[in-house]
Amino acid sequence: MKICGIIVEYNPFHNGHRYHAEMAREQTGADIVIAVMSGNFLQRGEPAIIDKWSRATAALQNGVDLVIELPIEWSVQSADYFAKGAVRLLQMLGCTHLCFGTEEESTFNYEAFGKFVQQNQLRIDREFQRLSDQGMSYPQKMTAVFNTLYPEIALDFSSPNHILGLSYAKENAQYAQPMKLVPITRKSAGYHDEEWSSSSIASATAIRKALSEQRSVTNFIPAATAAMIEAGSQQTWANYWPLLRYRLLSTELANLKTIYQMTEGLEVRMQSAAKKATSFEEFVTLVKTKRYTWTRIQRLACYVLLNIHHEEIHDQQAKCYLNILGFTKAGQQFLKEKKEIPLISKIGKKEAELAHLLVRSDQIYQLGGAIPEQNFGRRPYVSK
Amino acid sequence: MKICGIIVEYNPFHNGHRYHAEMAREQTGADIVIAVMSGNFLQRGEPAIIDKWSRATAALQNGVDLVIELPIEWSVQSADYFAKGAVRLLQMLGCTHLCFGTEEESTFNYEAFGKFVQQNQLRIDREFQRLSDQGMSYPQKMTAVFNTLYPEIALDFSSPNHILGLSYAKENAQYAQPMKLVPITRKSAGYHDEEWSSSSIASATAIRKALSEQRSVTNFIPAATAAMIEAGSQQTWANYWPLLRYRLLSTELANLKTIYQMTEGLEVRMQSAAKKATSFEEFVTLVKTKRYTWTRIQRLACYVLLNIHHEEIHDQQAKCYLNILGFTKAGQQFLKEKKEIPLISKIGKKEAELAHLLVRSDQIYQLGGAIPEQNFGRRPYVSK
Repeated sequence: MKICGIIVEYNPFHNGHRYHAEMAREQTGADIVIAVMSGNFLQRGEPAIIDKWSRATAALQNGVDLVIELPIEWSVQSADYFAKGAVRLLQMLGCTHLCFGTEEESTFNYEAFGKFVQQNQLRIDREFQRLSDQGMSYPQKMTAVFNTLYPEIALDFSSPNHILGLSYAKENAQYAQPMKLVPITRKSAGYHDEEWSSSSIASATAIRKALSEQRSVTNFIPAATAAMIEAGSQQTWANYWPLLRYRLLSTELANLKTIYQMTEGLEVRMQSAAKKATSFEEFVTLVKTKRYTWTRIQRLACYVLLNIHHEEIHDQQAKCYLNILGFTKAGQQFLKEKKEIPLISKIGKKEAELAHLLVRSDQIYQLGGAIPEQNFGRRPYVSK
Repeated sequence: MKICGIIVEYNPFHNGHRYHAEMAREQTGADIVIAVMSGNFLQRGEPAIIDKWSRATAALQNGVDLVIELPIEWSVQSADYFAKGAVRLLQMLGCTHLCFGTEEESTFNYEAFGKFVQQNQLRIDREFQRLSDQGMSYPQKMTAVFNTLYPEIALDFSSPNHILGLSYAKENAQYAQPMKLVPITRKSAGYHDEEWSSSSIASATAIRKALSEQRSVTNFIPAATAAMIEAGSQQTWANYWPLLRYRLLSTELANLKTIYQMTEGLEVRMQSAAKKATSFEEFVTLVKTKRYTWTRIQRLACYVLLNIHHEEIHDQQAKCYLNILGFTKAGQQFLKEKKEIPLISKIGKKEAELAHLLVRSDQIYQLGGAIPEQNFGRRPYVSK
């Protein structure tokens, strides 16, 4: 049986995502396509524009058989940790293939890269160490290290999907039975493109921009998704900025210092920026330094908003569960044979303790607008 | 020199307050009338409807010579602690008289009561202890104890000013040179009255109610105060409810448990009420039990909102400072001779560390609306 995994955020789900799911099935000949999807907070440190249930529903209506949540402890992370969490879930589900979009031409060999990293970890770590005191950001160091050690990588870090692909490859290579990697060159729209392409495919960034300007997006997303977006409130950092600001102004520095990834006195910069800033964008601009990227600060802002401390992330990452957001008939059939893995199809008291960061994060997500309860009483969406 | 102290909240300043300041001066023959006034959070656990500077300004334009802030660690407290903080400040300033409003007829002897308590503290503590496991609220126990030990007190606890008067009397009796107590029977309007009286005097409660219903209050407050209220935004718990809710939902129970006055699992009740409630009133209703009064829960909600922990209150209460909000020429002259006491007339870095709970609380108060900076860069208001 061929089982193809994909790793997604769907913020929101659009025609390019449908194309990707179709290609994944076609190119791998998969019987089942499984999406591991970020929950309500995303890799770049942002709230999802619409909630995880709506995004999963759109996916299940458009080519995906099963949607499993990538929980907060793995979703709001740099590429390597994001990949670690997602690949682990796909491995637990027994995926045979991993299909991902990339900006690179199809000639790049991700599997070879993954093996190279596995075999040269010590050299890589040493190179990193050597660069670590030069005030470079993490992506800058990464570029410098790999362009030296693995020149065919041609890394310029303006290609976020390629970067994620490299992380998947590295992580996948650690497993006894790695998945076959199937990169698909992205059609038409680059990740960061803010403008429309002429076709029916636009990037999620462009679609969010259009939505914020109240322009129609119906050419670029499935009709059902469009209806869902119009029905609900759209979440952006602006909705959570008053809460983030309040937390920063009301919390002692000693406590802020123990927030996950709060290093080098960033708590002082953040508190003082919160006093001055009148918007989230202004806040990030004030906190940003040469060493820390915009995305790094956004992720840190998420941890502050969600009040996530060092030890909580580590405790939570040590636990393992698969929160099912929905399935098709085929996905449901597939799950019936997976008795041995810790599937969650209903959040009760026990599950809320197990997945406590997920539950807390969703409760805070709900404060951002007219958002329905995200966990208690919710059951997986079943697509016809 | 006769110096008369008064202890006030001015929420907002109205004609009854002006009458009280005038009576204080007249009945004591004071050269100076000093008001110790709660800052931006009040004794009953509420944000002040307008900020401390506006309220101090109104007082200085209407009969008060000097306004000193009663900081958060003393203002949001039960009557006994509120009295302890306020009487201490008046004692430091060398007040010879303490004048306060009361619902009681002028025959009640507060000084005798103060001395009685001082001389019978052990008996009183024993009586309290005896009642402490019967699920009574604090006011109920207090009524039971004093109605037995000191029958002439005729305590029914529906008279908040009388209760405060008793607390002032108890606290004042502890000092080597107690102030002379001058109770003034309140004119026309009871503390809790929500309705208009026919005269130019209405209770602050009635005035706030009228303001919330956008009825005119110009008959009952000085014109300058009316203008100030109309110019700014009026703060109520509704403005802070989203922040309180967010903190309760985003904070671990172990941390909430260390909030000042969080006892007997109230943190669990509060967190679960925050999930359900859609307004602050609904929230308090859900948390309330027979044992805990509405006011007690409101104060606790303040401590949660302001993130004030056990040890912080005690550390802060151990410090001592007088934050000057404003003065008349006479008040200024009076202060010139007070070189030996820790007066603050400007909050800088050092003062912000000394009075850190006050500064934090004001920063959070400012999040409730279009409220100007409350500390940095502010100087005492000087009344002509």
